[in-house]
Formats: sequence, structure tokens, C-alpha cells
Amino acid sequence: MIDLRSDTVTKPTMAMRQAALEAEVGDDVYEEDPTVKKLEAKAAEMLGKDAALFVTSGTQGNQIAVLTHCNPGDEVLLEANAHLFLYEGASMSALAGVQPRTITGQKGAMDPAEIKTAIRPDDIHFPETGLICLENTHNKAGGTVVPLENMQTIYEIAREHSIPVHLDGARLFNASIASGISLKSYGDQTDTIQVCLSKGLGAPVGSVIAGSTDFIRKARKWRKRLGGGLRQVGMIAAPAYVALTEMVDRLADDHEHARRLASGLSEVKGLQVEEVETNIVLAHVGGTGRTAAEFLEELKVDDILAVPFGPETVRFVTNYDVNEAAIETVIHRIQLRYKDA
Amino acid sequence: MIDLRSDTVTKPTMAMRQAALEAEVGDDVYEEDPTVKKLEAKAAEMLGKDAALFVTSGTQGNQIAVLTHCNPGDEVLLEANAHLFLYEGASMSALAGVQPRTITGQKGAMDPAEIKTAIRPDDIHFPETGLICLENTHNKAGGTVVPLENMQTIYEIAREHSIPVHLDGARLFNASIASGISLKSYGDQTDTIQVCLSKGLGAPVGSVIAGSTDFIRKARKWRKRLGGGLRQVGMIAAPAYVALTEMVDRLADDHEHARRLASGLSEVKGLQVEEVETNIVLAHVGGTGRTAAEFLEELKVDDILAVPFGPETVRFVTNYDVNEAAIETVIHRIQLRYKDA
Amino acid sequence: MIDLRSDTVTKPTMAMRQAALEAEVGDDVYEEDPTVKKLEAKAAEMLGKDAALFVTSGTQGNQIAVLTHCNPGDEVLLEANAHLFLYEGASMSALAGVQPRTITGQKGAMDPAEIKTAIRPDDIHFPETGLICLENTHNKAGGTVVPLENMQTIYEIAREHSIPVHLDGARLFNASIASGISLKSYGDQTDTIQVCLSKGLGAPVGSVIAGSTDFIRKARKWRKRLGGGLRQVGMIAAPAYVALTEMVDRLADDHEHARRLASGLSEVKGLQVEEVETNIVLAHVGGTGRTAAEFLEELKVDDILAVPFGPETVRFVTNYDVNEAAIETVIHRIQLRYKDA
Amino acid sequence: MIDLRSDTVTKPTMAMRQAALEAEVGDDVYEEDPTVKKLEAKAAEMLGKDAALFVTSGTQGNQIAVLTHCNPGDEVLLEANAHLFLYEGASMSALAGVQPRTITGQKGAMDPAEIKTAIRPDDIHFPETGLICLENTHNKAGGTVVPLENMQTIYEIAREHSIPVHLDGARLFNASIASGISLKSYGDQTDTIQVCLSKGLGAPVGSVIAGSTDFIRKARKWRKRLGGGLRQVGMIAAPAYVALTEMVDRLADDHEHARRLASGLSEVKGLQVEEVETNIVLAHVGGTGRTAAEFLEELKVDDILAVPFGPETVRFVTNYDVNEAAIETVIHRIQLRYKDA
Repeated sequence: MIDLRSDTVTKPTMAMRQAALEAEVGDDVYEEDPTVKKLEAKAAEMLGKDAALFVTSGTQGNQIAVLTHCNPGDEVLLEANAHLFLYEGASMSALAGVQPRTITGQKGAMDPAEIKTAIRPDDIHFPETGLICLENTHNKAGGTVVPLENMQTIYEIAREHSIPVHLDGARLFNASIASGISLKSYGDQTDTIQVCLSKGLGAPVGSVIAGSTDFIRKARKWRKRLGGGLRQVGMIAAPAYVALTEMVDRLADDHEHARRLASGLSEVKGLQVEEVETNIVLAHVGGTGRTAAEFLEELKVDDILAVPFGPETVRFVTNYDVNEAAIETVIHRIQLRYKDA
Repeated sequence: MIDLRSDTVTKPTMAMRQAALEAEVGDDVYEEDPTVKKLEAKAAEMLGKDAALFVTSGTQGNQIAVLTHCNPGDEVLLEANAHLFLYEGASMSALAGVQPRTITGQKGAMDPAEIKTAIRPDDIHFPETGLICLENTHNKAGGTVVPLENMQTIYEIAREHSIPVHLDGARLFNASIASGISLKSYGDQTDTIQVCLSKGLGAPVGSVIAGSTDFIRKARKWRKRLGGGLRQVGMIAAPAYVALTEMVDRLADDHEHARRLASGLSEVKGLQVEEVETNIVLAHVGGTGRTAAEFLEELKVDDILAVPFGPETVRFVTNYDVNEAAIETVIHRIQLRYKDA
Repeated sequence: MIDLRSDTVTKPTMAMRQAALEAEVGDDVYEEDPTVKKLEAKAAEMLGKDAALFVTSGTQGNQIAVLTHCNPGDEVLLEANAHLFLYEGASMSALAGVQPRTITGQKGAMDPAEIKTAIRPDDIHFPETGLICLENTHNKAGGTVVPLENMQTIYEIAREHSIPVHLDGARLFNASIASGISLKSYGDQTDTIQVCLSKGLGAPVGSVIAGSTDFIRKARKWRKRLGGGLRQVGMIAAPAYVALTEMVDRLADDHEHARRLASGLSEVKGLQVEEVETNIVLAHVGGTGRTAAEFLEELKVDDILAVPFGPETVRFVTNYDVNEAAIETVIHRIQLRYKDA
Repeated sequence: MIDLRSDTVTKPTMAMRQAALEAEVGDDVYEEDPTVKKLEAKAAEMLGKDAALFVTSGTQGNQIAVLTHCNPGDEVLLEANAHLFLYEGASMSALAGVQPRTITGQKGAMDPAEIKTAIRPDDIHFPETGLICLENTHNKAGGTVVPLENMQTIYEIAREHSIPVHLDGARLFNASIASGISLKSYGDQTDTIQVCLSKGLGAPVGSVIAGSTDFIRKARKWRKRLGGGLRQVGMIAAPAYVALTEMVDRLADDHEHARRLASGLSEVKGLQVEEVETNIVLAHVGGTGRTAAEFLEELKVDDILAVPFGPETVRFVTNYDVNEAAIETVIHRIQLRYKDA
């Protein structure tokens, strides 16, 4: 099976497993695990923030950010296809009692003017705008890189209104590799960030949130409430540290593979392929006469896995466990199957 | 002052005051207030439902509906400019822990196809679609009447997916008078309804929610939790009963006044006036060189009150306390002020 | 029927009804109802606070106080039989997300030492102690007056720990009349207060919460979220004003009636009657061989209503609609029925 | 340092680390991690339940149980010193919107008669009793074993009222070893159970909740909402499996060590030591003239760690990393320091 469903499916490398075996550990509820501290310090430094906190998933990191930034009855502005809105089980409302207000973006980037308009004035009928959430790269838009200037403009507006900004940077490493802009430069345009170590970087488990020391102190308590206060967490922080320090640059390979895959697929009759910016390839399959579900069934017969991303849209995500040869195989099999489509 | 800010500003009539004076009352927490029972029975009958419950406001009625229909972590589908979403302080998220998902409508009516697409399939990442909310007439769209067939189609989709439908009918009386369609016919296309007695009908205080007996039983407990379980409520249920039984037909006058106002204003240079369906007139004032705020300031100087409904949009709502002569005065003063604009 | 179930069952007086008839009103969502403003100003003055807000029930007032003072995940200290804990449908947890922590009091008064011990130190496992709630008079303890010194000591502890104090003063007027201590003196020992106008004072509907100007500003928004933002509220604020200004002193009669009732009942074989402090009489009926439910059934046959307050305990509440003669009738009938018990 | 603060501080064994190195893994969000499936199946079998779910902490397991069993506005009955009430940051109220109602137990066991009384009848003022939570062994009571018959009686009452029962069995393995009663027999007296693998069993991270298939299906979604849906979780499930299958019987050693420690400490002048049932020793240190904090400071000087469990109470927890010799050292050092106390 060639698994292109997500970059979350990658298996930990032997270096990561070895790191787990040898990890120096302690009880992190007592803040005594040296490995997770090392990981958090490294992540904070890379993102240009005062402090960081290990969490067990991107969802947990995002939700802790919402819980820490907001009060119940606040409104949160975010892109209409943001992961936080579409794929996190309405947690921000269920747990934090906040109302999402969505703005439809272009390739994942919201128009700053629309954000300005959406910020609520003071009125007895209105919630307060308690948070602006960005996502970079933007998953649903196809792994697109939200331009730094867009983030800058939004951050300026946010500060004028004293509204915090959180960045869902589950795939911020991909954005940085693709744009050549440092993680820190992105971090400068937001109050808090979540980055995921278990996607393209290949860690078995874990994300990190980063922000001010005060934010992280409060976030730690919300993490405990969600059951994310772990004990000898070094066992997973150690492989995550390997991911953070040794696996970022190799994302360039995933991007190269994605471009090659897109190029190959675009030659297939009936497939319309979106422009590739990072490690995600979106293909509209309606032209083959198949729905996404039918197309994926046929892919499976050919030992290829991907996921639906709309009624007639399929998402492929290149990742560490799929090499160049595998990409060629994928292209070959699809071309073969649909050559007369 | 000619007050066209809202139909909520109307003062109770002498008949309503007299009804309060003479109201037969009891302790409604013990369900012993005969006047509120009479009101609830009448409302249930008019709306074609098994039971009804008096609440202190439209917001309270809507929120109780959400609390009774939904579980935390559910998603609620509703129009992007719905009152429930824009003007109720994010209560549905703060109190019920549900996430609104908005669909941009045409004149307040959502496209059933978009609703169908927005209903969530079963997936670990997704909230369950717990409720669909409609609004008729639609306030922010300008008092537009949502067509009965639109409601029917949506209700069919909802039932196929076992999703309840709630109607924010704060101004359903206006819809009924304007369309000639009975309240009951509207009620047949929804599981629960909230109607407001304190808008065009002129009651000093109160709305009613209606639905199945089981729904109302559960709603009563949520009303108590919100502090809406009152004691000798007959004192306000009596005037509300007058409103419900004697004031519906006269809404035709408000609609006539609104049409006259729109017609008069459309002759003013720089004003662009939306087509009028009921008792709301939306005027875009940008052409006068004024913002909405500036335009309203000038209106005030002329002893006329209205409210902003966007950066360059002003809303006028005709109501019981504004008669035909007053409408002519409003037109005259605005025409005078802007004749050379 | 002689109705001693609660002081909430009293019917509005003719003066109150007349006040409704004549009330000067406006739209209170726009803060334009002069009658409710007059009521709020008067209540604030009597309670020694900067500002006050009319709410539709004691439950609504208490819940708004919790919502305004606390953050989700806070802990609230209160007496084990407090109304807020026992009789408000777990609203403080459902709406505000706070955890009650109960302390068993003596006649409704908590031991300040136990409060001190219960305040949470700073620890990742612990909620923050976000509020201390008092109740005076204490309903479940039998209308007992919590001593001013007890409140003072608790308030000092609270201020040392920067924890706000809220007083559920649904029957604070009774406490004041019984103790001779002014409302303001009680108000000085708490940050916020809720007083109910619809119990002994006989208003048809309504309570008031009082506190700092900033507290009331925030409380107003929470009231709107709960659906307690009313329109021409003067129609019920006017009778409430009559209650607040003309009905306080007469509570002495209720207290006298309660003492007389207790004295009469204590002569009945098998009844054990608690000492009376205000307008509540608790009788333990086990000695008659009846459960509370059975005893109440027999009372009903004798045209007397009361409520159960435990498996073998019955509560009688004297009120404006029960005069001296009625009290004698109650005593007479009970003595007659149980003379051979 | 001899660390007796908790059994959570134990470091993973080499067998556990080796298991991590070799773990067969997959993406558990897609339910494809074979190692976590094996762990869950084994735990379900041992506890006599249909299904089980791996979670990252005991707190997460307990909170998911509350979220899955309850609706907002429910009341939860539990012991006054339950971990769920004292040590989980008021999460049950913050996340699930339920109100805890505490019952003071004897050695951690609640009186079934008090539970019966506390269950709420149907009344508009009352929350519904949505869950009964037990804890076995009971941490705050000193690792006491709640008798099986007590659990049986409570479960019968619960079923009569259709109220589910959840067992916080963070240290149920200790209860089973101490009492000789099987895990399954305990499991038969409760609907759902949480057991912690990272306490006496020494796993680095993780707990398991078990219950019906339907419960686990719903719990899985709440786990995702809390951010507990992990990816290649086999890396921590593998050591947890070692803990579950190889480390249970050795708890007998911890119990033996605890008895020895208690016996030694009871000879120290000024120390009053509670009877030991499992691996927890509670010592009241007031007789030494020290507060708990002072006593712990002196212990630290002697290279011994424990935690405060009250103003004058200290808790020691024996665990895998503290052998017999270390226990003797602890006794020796404390005897030495306080011999003249």
C-alpha cells in the first residue's frame, strides 16, 4: 500500500525509536521531565516565543489556545474552511463556549478588510471578538502558504483592537520550507502558535504550543483539565525532539514529490489538479465520471490510499514514508487506469 | 420624536394596561397562573402545535430551543445574518456549547442544496448537525418573507436526516399577514417556533415558544435554569394575550406605512431603498455622502429615530406608535434635508 | 385554601396593579424605561451599592452574579443547603461551568474557619476559588438570620484572598426586619447582592441584583444572553417599586404570624417545631406517624397548603395573603386532626 | 533521593523501553494502531467489559466518562474527597457542565442510604442525578479498599433509578491485589471504569477506560474533542501493555513496603500513622510540632520526598522504584531525626 491519506500516517524512524529507548524522563506533572523541557525550549526558540508546551495533538493545542485566550460568549474569527472550525468536533464551542465566525478566504488567506468589518463594536447584543485564528499552511485550501504580509496586516488590525491572534501552524514547517521565510518571522505575526510534530516531521505523537510565559502558565492548567498532563512524557518527547531538529529540511522532498505527482496527474484525462505549494495535492475527479468515493475505491484496488476532500475532490499528501519511486508508481497506475476514461 | 428604530419600542395600549390591572394570576412556577395558561393554549393553537411556553424575550425563546434540541458539541445550521447568530451575544455557544455554521441566504432564505451539503456525515472529526434554524420574516435581510416552499424543502431534508428544525418567528405574524399564509401552515414546516408578542403586536414584554408536549416539558426546565420561571406572570401575560388576539391584523397598516415610506424615500437623491415586503425599510445612504452614523445624526436633529444596519445602511421599522401622518412627516423632512444632496 | 407553601404565591395588591396601569414605560434594551431606572436606583441606594439591575427571578439574579464573577473551571464556596446549590437546576455548572464546593453550616451560617481551609492554594490540580456565596435569611435552615458578624468575618477572609462575595438575599428584607440591622449594613459585607421583590414583598415578578457600576455593566450583558433583557419592563417594575417602597415594614406581621403558628403547632402531639426567626416554620411530623407527603395530603383535605422539606419535615411560609385569623384557623384545624395522634 | 511522592514518578523499565523501540504502530485516528488495539482488548477482557479505550491520563479518562454519561445541568454524586472532585481542576463543571454533589464517606466508601437520599426526585427546581462516581482504592482516604459489597449495594440503587455508575479505578489494581477480588468482579459492579497504567504498574503514560461498545464509541469522539486522539500511539501503548500484563502482581511488594513503612513510622514519637491497606501511608505529623510543610522540608534534607495531604498530614506512596532497603533507610532517617522530638 502506498499511503497518501495524510502526513500523519508516517511511522517513527529508527532514530526516533532509539531516542525513546534512551530518553531521560521524569514526572512532567511535577515539571521534572528533562526531555520534554528540552523539546519545549527548542520549539520556543525556533518560533521566537518565550515559552512552549508539549500537547498530545494539534487539536489539543488549538483548543487550549482558545480556552486560554477567550471567555465564554466570545466570538472567534477564522477562515471558513479552517481545521479548527471543520475538523475539531465543534470543540471550541463545546469546551470554551465561544462562537466561531467564519470568513471565506482565498487560498486560505482571509481578506484583512473583512476581518476589520467582522470585529464587533461594543453593543449589548454582540459578543466580544475574543480571538482571530489563522492557519498556515492551509489544509483544506490544498496546503497553500498564507503570505506573511497577509498575516502582518491582520496582526496590526488585531493589535489595534486588542484582540489576540492564534496561528494553527500544524503544517507551518511546510510553509517555512516552501516560502523560505523563517518560523520566527511567522511567529512574529501572532501571539500564539501551534505546530504539529507528528505530520510531515514524522514524530509518532505530539504538537507544541508557544507563546508568552503567562500564556503558557495558564495553558498548562487547561492542558491538565483536558487530561493532557502526562507523566514520563520523555518517551514521546524524545522522538518528537528528533522530528523537530532533524526532519524539517527534508520536507523539501515531500514538496518535490507533490509537484511531481501533480504534474503526472494533470496529464490524466478527466483529472483537474490544483496548483501545488507544499505537500498536498488536490485533484478534482469529476471529469473521470467518478465521485471521490468511487475514485478512491479504484485507487485502493491499485494499492494506493488517499482521502475525499469534497464530493468530487481527492486529497493526496506526500510524506516521509512515500519515496520518489512510489510517487512514480502512483502516477503510472492512475495513468494506466484512466487512460481511456 | 418619531421612533422608527424598532417595533419593540411601542408602548402598551390602554387595553393592555387594563388587562394587567384585571389579570387573574397565580404562581406560574407551580403552573397555577390561569392567564399565562390561556395565552400559551391560544398560541399553541394558532401555531398548530401541541403546547407552548411563555418566555420573557425572543432571545430567551431561541436559546431555550437550542438548549432543548441540542447536545454540547453539536453544530447548528443557520443563515449568515440570522438574529440567533448576529444579535444574541454568542449565547448558543456560551450556554449550549454548540457551534453555529452559517449559510449565506438570498433575502433570508437558505438554499436547500447548501443545507444538504452542510449536514455532517458520521466521522470522528465532525460535530453532529443538531439543529437547523430558520428566521421568518428575516430581520437583517430587510423584513423579507421566506417562502413557504423553501421552508418545506428544508424541512424534508431535515427529517430525512432526523435533524430538528426551529423557526425564529419573532416577526412571523408579519410574514403571515404579508403572504396570506396562515401561522399554522408555517408551523407545519418546523418542529418548534418562537414568536414575539412585543414587536409589531405591541405587548410590553414576552415571546412564546411552541412545539411538542415533550419539547415544552424539557424547555420549561431550561427556562427555569435561565431564570425565566416567573411568579404572577399573568400581569404581563394578560397584555400579551391582548396583543396576540387583537393586534395581528393591524400589522397590515405597518406594512402599508413601510411601503409608503420606501416609496417616498426612493425619490430622495442619494438614497437607494430596498424593496419592502413587511414593516422594515432598508435604505442605503452612501449616495448622500453620509455614513449611516452621520445620516442618523441628521435624522435625530429632525426628530426621527432609526438604527444603523451596516456602514452605509439605515433601518426603519414601522410600528403601532407611528401613524400615517407621521410617516408623511418623515418623508417630508428627509426630502427637504436632502433635496440638494 | 390557606396557602402557606411559599411567600412567592402572594397576589399583587391593587396598588401594584394600579401602578402597572399607570406605569411610564420605554424600551429597556435601549435603557429607556424610566420606571425600571427608578426601581434600580432605589434598590441600589437601599443596599448601599453603586448600581442595580432588575432581573426576572432570584435564580436569574444569582446565576448572572456567578456568570459575571467567575470563569469556567472556578470553584464556588457555598452552604450545603444553599438555594443556589439545591434549587437552581445545577445552573451554575450548566451555564457558568463552575464547580460548587459545599460547607455544612449551622442555621445557615458557614464557619469562617472552614471557608479559610476550603480556599484553594495555587496548584496545577486545583480550580481557583472564584466566589463565595452566602444566603440570608437561609431558606432551607428555616428562614434563619445569618449573623452580621459571621458575614463580616467571611468578607475579611474573602478580601485577603481577593475572592468576591455574593449574597443571595432573596429574603434579606426578612433578615433586616427581624434583626433590626439595615439592608445597607448587610450590603457592606458583600460585593454583590440579589434581593427578591416577589417573595414577602408581594411583587408579581422580579428581583434586583446590586453591585459596582462595572459589575452591573457586565451583568447587563449576561442578562441579555439569558433572555432577561426586556422591553416595556415598567409594567412589572412599577408594581415591584410599590413592593420595595411600601411592603418592607409589613414583613413584621409575617414574622409575628410565623411565631404564633409555631407556638400553636408545638402544642400538637407528635409535631416537633423549629425555633422561628422570620417567616418560615419548619415542623418535623414523624411523631404523628406520617411522612411529610402524608401529612401534606391531610392538610390539603383541611384546605391548607404547605410543602415538604425533607422526608418527615414540612415547611410553612407566612405571607401577605394569610392574615392572623387564617393562622388561627390553621392551628385549630391541625390541633383538631392530631389531638389523638 | 528516595521518591515517595506518588506512584506516578516511577521510570519505565527497560522492558517497557524495549517494547517502545519495537512497537508495531499505525495511525490510531484511523484506528490502525495494532498495539493500542491489543492493549485495549486486553484491558477490556481483564475488566470484564465489551470494549476499552486508551487515554493519556486518569483525569482524561474520568472526564471523558462524565462527558459521555451526562448532559449539562446534571448532578453527579461522588465522595467528598474523590480525586474527580478535589484534583481535576473542576473539569467536570468546566467541560461537561455538571454539578458535583458530595457525600462524606468512611474510608472512601459512601453510605448507600445517603446516596439513596441524594438522588433527585423529578422537580422543576432540581437537576437530574446523571451519574454516580466511585473511587477504589480511595487515594485521599489513604489508599483504602472500598468493599465490594458497598459497590454492589450502590450499583443496585443506581440501576433502580437508571443512573449509570463510573468507577475511578486509577488504583483498582492495588484494590484487587490487596483484597484478592478479581478486577472483573469489581468491574461487574459498575458501568464504566478508568484504570491507570502509569501509577503502580509503572507505564510511562496512560490510562484505559472500559465499558459497553456504545459507550466507547461515544467516548472516542469526546477523546478526540479533548485532543486525546493520537497517531502512532503504539509507542506508548507498548510499554503500557507491558505494565498491564507483567506488573500487576508485583504491587504486593509495594503493599508490603507500605506496611513496613507504617510500622516503622508508628514507632516515631509524635507521628500518628493510619492503618495501611495498599501502597499509601498517611502520617499525621502534628505531634512532632511541625506542620506538613515543615516536616516535608526536613524530609527533603534527608533526601526523602513525600507530599502534603492536609495541614498536618503527609502522604507516602510506595512504588516500583523504591525497594525494601530504601524503605528501611527512610524509616531509619526519620527515626533518627525525630527520636528526641
